[in-house]
Amino acid sequence: MNALPATIASSAGACCAPGQAMDDGTAHDLAKVFKALGDPTRVKLLSMIVGSSAGEMCVCDLTDPVGLSQPTVSHHMKLLVEAELVTREQRGKWAYYRPTTGTLADAAKALLG
Amino acid sequence: MNALPATIASSAGACCAPGQAMDDGTAHDLAKVFKALGDPTRVKLLSMIVGSSAGEMCVCDLTDPVGLSQPTVSHHMKLLVEAELVTREQRGKWAYYRPTTGTLADAAKALLG
Repeated sequence: MNALPATIASSAGACCAPGQAMDDGTAHDLAKVFKALGDPTRVKLLSMIVGSSAGEMCVCDLTDPVGLSQPTVSHHMKLLVEAELVTREQRGKWAYYRPTTGTLADAAKALLG
Repeated sequence: MNALPATIASSAGACCAPGQAMDDGTAHDLAKVFKALGDPTRVKLLSMIVGSSAGEMCVCDLTDPVGLSQPTVSHHMKLLVEAELVTREQRGKWAYYRPTTGTLADAAKALLG
């Protein structure tokens, strides 16, 4: 379903003893996921990929709806890949992206318990 | 439970027609929530408040666990308040914060469907 950093998956619901902050590694991993979505364009891109009936989207179909050039969209997609919110597969000329939807749900669960 | 921007609450599960991006207002509102959590310190602060047995935490109890000064913690808390992830109540000398946990869950739901 997804390829979460182990620190996120293992910490779900485990935080924290009263008066004790979450450990640095977990907080860093969670913040990385949320930061990747802290931009309206990346929110739009992920929403389109999640909503795709094919289960994946070509970068060539992502540019028009957000009104940005392909290099700019590819940059945004790189941040979503690095946060493990999507996976990327190169097929011929184009890159295709699939959602790893468990990443965001697990991050929210790790934070909210 | 929470005080979500109407655009987030009403858009849950509604995005998007194929090949059509989420509208700008919704994407902006969602990104604001995620951006507020795109920092490890704010992730730690929210996790402590969510995990508080009293259902709220005084700013005076938040500084030590994250090892930061009160003005710095208050700045981080202001961003969490603006994203509607917590509410703030001034009582005498101190500010107290309560989580509005529905905000993050609803934002994730709006994005993932």
